[in-house]
Amino acid sequence: MCDLQAKRGRLYVGYYVGVKWFFALLIGIATGFTAVFINISVENFAGWKFELTFSIIQKSYFAGYIIYVLINLALVYSSVCIVTHFAPAAAGSGIPEIKGYLNGVDAHGILLFRTLIGKIFGSIGSVGGGLALGKEGPLVHTGACIASLLGQGGSTKYHVSSRWLQVFKSDRDRRDLVTCGCAAGVAAAFRAPVGGVLFALEEVTSWWRSQLMWRVFFTSAIVAVVVRTAMGWCKDGNCGHFGSGGFIIWDISGGQEDYSFMELLPMAVIGVIGGLLGALFNQLTLYTTYWRRNFLHKKGNRVKIIEACIISVLTSTISFGLPLLRSCTPCPDSEPDSGIECPRAPGMYGNYVNFYCSKEREYNDLATIFFNTQDDAIRNLFSAKTIREYSAQSLLTFLVMFYALAVVTFGTAVPAGQFVPGIMIGSTYGRLVGMLVVRVYGKLNIEEGTYALLGAASFLGGSMRMTVSLCVIMVEITNNLKLLPLIMLVLLISKAVGDAFNEGLYEEQARLRGIPLLESRPKYQMRHLTAKEACGNQKVVSLPRVVKVADLAAILQSNKHNGFPVIEQIRNGETLVIGLVLRSHLLVLLQTKVDFQHSPLPSDGLNAIRHNISEFVKPASSKGVSINDIHLSSDDLEMYIDLAPFLNPSPYVVPEDMSLTKVYNLFRQLGLRHLFVVPRASRVIGVITRKDLLIEDNEEAAFVELQSTSVRAHILNRRLNARNGEAERPLLSGLIGDSS
Amino acid sequence: MCDLQAKRGRLYVGYYVGVKWFFALLIGIATGFTAVFINISVENFAGWKFELTFSIIQKSYFAGYIIYVLINLALVYSSVCIVTHFAPAAAGSGIPEIKGYLNGVDAHGILLFRTLIGKIFGSIGSVGGGLALGKEGPLVHTGACIASLLGQGGSTKYHVSSRWLQVFKSDRDRRDLVTCGCAAGVAAAFRAPVGGVLFALEEVTSWWRSQLMWRVFFTSAIVAVVVRTAMGWCKDGNCGHFGSGGFIIWDISGGQEDYSFMELLPMAVIGVIGGLLGALFNQLTLYTTYWRRNFLHKKGNRVKIIEACIISVLTSTISFGLPLLRSCTPCPDSEPDSGIECPRAPGMYGNYVNFYCSKEREYNDLATIFFNTQDDAIRNLFSAKTIREYSAQSLLTFLVMFYALAVVTFGTAVPAGQFVPGIMIGSTYGRLVGMLVVRVYGKLNIEEGTYALLGAASFLGGSMRMTVSLCVIMVEITNNLKLLPLIMLVLLISKAVGDAFNEGLYEEQARLRGIPLLESRPKYQMRHLTAKEACGNQKVVSLPRVVKVADLAAILQSNKHNGFPVIEQIRNGETLVIGLVLRSHLLVLLQTKVDFQHSPLPSDGLNAIRHNISEFVKPASSKGVSINDIHLSSDDLEMYIDLAPFLNPSPYVVPEDMSLTKVYNLFRQLGLRHLFVVPRASRVIGVITRKDLLIEDNEEAAFVELQSTSVRAHILNRRLNARNGEAERPLLSGLIGDSS
Repeated sequence: MCDLQAKRGRLYVGYYVGVKWFFALLIGIATGFTAVFINISVENFAGWKFELTFSIIQKSYFAGYIIYVLINLALVYSSVCIVTHFAPAAAGSGIPEIKGYLNGVDAHGILLFRTLIGKIFGSIGSVGGGLALGKEGPLVHTGACIASLLGQGGSTKYHVSSRWLQVFKSDRDRRDLVTCGCAAGVAAAFRAPVGGVLFALEEVTSWWRSQLMWRVFFTSAIVAVVVRTAMGWCKDGNCGHFGSGGFIIWDISGGQEDYSFMELLPMAVIGVIGGLLGALFNQLTLYTTYWRRNFLHKKGNRVKIIEACIISVLTSTISFGLPLLRSCTPCPDSEPDSGIECPRAPGMYGNYVNFYCSKEREYNDLATIFFNTQDDAIRNLFSAKTIREYSAQSLLTFLVMFYALAVVTFGTAVPAGQFVPGIMIGSTYGRLVGMLVVRVYGKLNIEEGTYALLGAASFLGGSMRMTVSLCVIMVEITNNLKLLPLIMLVLLISKAVGDAFNEGLYEEQARLRGIPLLESRPKYQMRHLTAKEACGNQKVVSLPRVVKVADLAAILQSNKHNGFPVIEQIRNGETLVIGLVLRSHLLVLLQTKVDFQHSPLPSDGLNAIRHNISEFVKPASSKGVSINDIHLSSDDLEMYIDLAPFLNPSPYVVPEDMSLTKVYNLFRQLGLRHLFVVPRASRVIGVITRKDLLIEDNEEAAFVELQSTSVRAHILNRRLNARNGEAERPLLSGLIGDSS
Repeated sequence: MCDLQAKRGRLYVGYYVGVKWFFALLIGIATGFTAVFINISVENFAGWKFELTFSIIQKSYFAGYIIYVLINLALVYSSVCIVTHFAPAAAGSGIPEIKGYLNGVDAHGILLFRTLIGKIFGSIGSVGGGLALGKEGPLVHTGACIASLLGQGGSTKYHVSSRWLQVFKSDRDRRDLVTCGCAAGVAAAFRAPVGGVLFALEEVTSWWRSQLMWRVFFTSAIVAVVVRTAMGWCKDGNCGHFGSGGFIIWDISGGQEDYSFMELLPMAVIGVIGGLLGALFNQLTLYTTYWRRNFLHKKGNRVKIIEACIISVLTSTISFGLPLLRSCTPCPDSEPDSGIECPRAPGMYGNYVNFYCSKEREYNDLATIFFNTQDDAIRNLFSAKTIREYSAQSLLTFLVMFYALAVVTFGTAVPAGQFVPGIMIGSTYGRLVGMLVVRVYGKLNIEEGTYALLGAASFLGGSMRMTVSLCVIMVEITNNLKLLPLIMLVLLISKAVGDAFNEGLYEEQARLRGIPLLESRPKYQMRHLTAKEACGNQKVVSLPRVVKVADLAAILQSNKHNGFPVIEQIRNGETLVIGLVLRSHLLVLLQTKVDFQHSPLPSDGLNAIRHNISEFVKPASSKGVSINDIHLSSDDLEMYIDLAPFLNPSPYVVPEDMSLTKVYNLFRQLGLRHLFVVPRASRVIGVITRKDLLIEDNEEAAFVELQSTSVRAHILNRRLNARNGEAERPLLSGLIGDSS
């Protein structure tokens, strides 16, 4: 213990920073490879499935249908089985839970090793099985799991743990790592490194520091290099169907590059549609999720499996059956330089799918988007120079059916992202608007694919309510910078329209799951409330410095608070708040029992040595002990504990009549979990201004005019008696950090 | 006054939010047009200058030289005269000052109307005059000025003021507007809307809220649309030389798209060079600026003007003379599809400048980059398919000379940005490394222009130490997304190398100017300091609630504190801290005298009505009154003031033994200016957790499981007696907001 304290010098800090960067590197590499693995698997499963189906329907459409349904069913079944029996926390996208975690709220089991495994293989099954969901959200969760597991040095349960890796003890370090992991996930999912950084910044965390930003940035860059290298290797055909799309997933740089003023109107229309459909999507999925959670999924795993299988068969049937009902279209006279084949060769990627068409030069436009992998469908929707490929009827049919499927699929017990379905839905109505615009403004140089892109942006904006990060992601996945101002405007409109109805998808889902996310803006009512009123009639349970074990056990049993103020009696009956102690630390103390003492007097302070600091580290991936798990003998109950070494000695406090708006900002900006409301102070000891906080690193900074002399004098003082000073520091200072 | 209080209901808030958005729109439009104006002026001045010079040197090189020097001198002279005689605050880039302003430190005069005018016309002169500086930094300052002036409803001094626009009273609203303005400036300067948002986020502000992000985003998008529209209009030749480059300033999308693993090594080398040269640049400019401030510029405006003129002549001579010493190169056999002419037609843009060359098919490679507008020089350095255009000698000469010129020019009394010089320097050595790589890895598909881009990124990273925003800006100005991972890596390396030597350019400059910027990371020593120690032996000057005017004047005269705690005596000698009063508000009270009262007892609270709230608004663009400007009669001195209505009743407080690291984070994250250090509390009234802060907007949110019942009950209570509640609110609550 003393050893550890001594190490906390400059050298230790340097080591610590080095380790942090090393972990950022590891997270980047691991997430990059995981993403490549998932992509290879999904694209090969899906590609093989469509190849097989296409070869069978040359003989019999019915046999093809059966095979198609069975393959999808098998994949979805494997996915739902993994999730229900092995990793329940792997269901859904995981983004609301990660968001909650980074906001300071732990959901059970979201960062377990088994969740990681479940997420990887589950999303291969669910996406490969053709459901109306994407693999991007799960990849974010995957990145977060990898980061958290690396940070705790492997999984303790599966004995894949390494001691020297256990450097990250405090909540704050953990959260930093998970933030890196999230960014890595997005960077890997969309091959969009800057988008990943911004996603982590804007969407996931509620607080942010610029040194963390830099590390997140590094992780994202590593992911990009890893994925890019893997794709270079795959180019030679080593990975089957993977890698054919290039590093930019849906490259539309060949499309419309310029826009005229007249086009702003239809683009605003796209924004409004996106806001409306996005808000509706959020509302509908909220209802279905609520219904599922409270009625359907309570009936057990079997119901979940049956449900997923039914939805799989339904999805397969619709995507196979609807194109059959649609008559085929003769191929257009292709422009010689567009390089687009019609119909495309079976089993290859491209537009103009020949499905249920008798003649050679015919294609089925609905099959082109419906009976295809998602990536290809989006590529086809975004494609330029295919101006008459889709009929409005087909697009409308697809929009309605796919929207319904996406709503129904949301909330099933499989890993599921909403990015790709959102892009599919959005690009469909975007292209519809584009077709209309082409008809109205006939002579302008308009590409429907560009409108499809704007539609995709608008739906994501209307549903997820992101701005900058989404904008950058859209540019990074489509490689068309010149449309950036338009994407920005469309996003602004759709977010504004959506915000008029409800909150963003992740916020709604988090709220439904009981994760108390703090919105960015304090509520209007908070202006009229004070901190004291927010605490209300809730009774404060304080602990004395030396507490009797029996009392402590009783207090822990009687309420569920996670933090307790510790109050010391000083002379003549006065009291003093000496700090905050966390429930989890109290439980460790009760469990290990090494700190129990017979005397009700403060101990000599040496008992700290008995503890290994790692005992206090909250397991990132389990619920931790409960008070009911701890057995205390009647002898134990008569003993005492001195809490002083285990305190956070200076938690943040606010005076009782501070406006709740200010309290709210404090919570959000600093990522707090507890805050003490105290009476107004009787006197002011000092006023700190910015100048007091400017400390020079090196005294020889000769011509810097500003300097706080008081601080400098104190630094010198402290340096002299540094050794004494160290001893006074609380034992768990590394753990309690800023997060309590 | 009461009227205002009553208005602050929901409706007023709605109006207020609407106005904010309207202002974001106005800022976007105004900054966009200003940027277009500056660009048109600069490009036409410079273009016309080169056209004229080229036509004269057909006859006599000497006459051409004289004309060239004189035109440059005239432009620079006009610029330096505007700055020295009219708008001294317009010198330099203005970014350190804006950064300081947004960090809560006002520099004198940076947001005046005259500064705006000086900045606009000064930068036209200095950039048009061919100095080694850019117009991008000044544009950021321009955007900030526009935002601030709009926010205060015009300039009061020049009577261009409008009453109804004066909605933004609080510091916080002002800062938000200025943040929007900064983003608009970057968006306009680089035609990089997302880069603008990120620049404002990463580089300029120390704190951030997501609703502000959205507004900043909107402003940037508007700027992009305005600039884009103006450029569309200019395409038809309406604006002379402006607009020929297209919306992407230096489009290199035709260059290298892919990279091999082997290229990572030379790119790392570029990163290291960038870090070294960037750190050296920061250090050298720090010395020259220090020397200028303390010796040269103290001698008055004449010295400043002479200095700028000497530098102008020097720059002109070097850029004209050096290419003359260089022998001409025969044109390479141009590839038929590259579309690059050699030599280019005189007076046109393009590579291969024929300067001092006798034969028809010859060009001067040094003149191509040196004797050219900056935009064109950069375009030529970035250009692809010009593999043998430059000799290593020429590039090296240019690098050394331009680097020296940039260092010398930095700190002269003209508006000056460092982005473009940085890009010039960086792309030169980048291209040098590229030439080396082409020679070594001969058979790979390598474009020197791509290396030039990486070099530019590395130098900016090594000097300004930005990460995400710079990365996005580089991508937005060059339209090559596929190199993004490489740009990220290069930036990381150069920033890391640079950080080993000194701080970023803006931080160093801000420090030199006495602007106490808080770095993102608290110093290591702060861990061992407490809040109390940071205040040191500095004596706290408190005011009683009712203060005698004579005492108040004495206190204000005897120290320079900007905020004072106000302490009330309650029964039996106990005291209570009732709030913080700002020096500026006290000065207003002393000046207006309407609140003076004869009795030393608390007033009835009605005196507030006598005041117009706008009297308390700190003028954004002047120093405000000083205590010495206020004349108080001896009768006045015997009067009293009740400070209660003018307090910030709940400033943030920290307990005396809180670690300074925590205090630092509090300051930075919340953008504070003052913080009270108070004794430890004797008891805890309540503990606030996240769940206490979740308030539902609408009670009918049926199936949300989490709810803090205590808060809800209180809201209902408050609603019942809302009218009583309003009266208790402090008078200046709109002003003191969160920023004190």
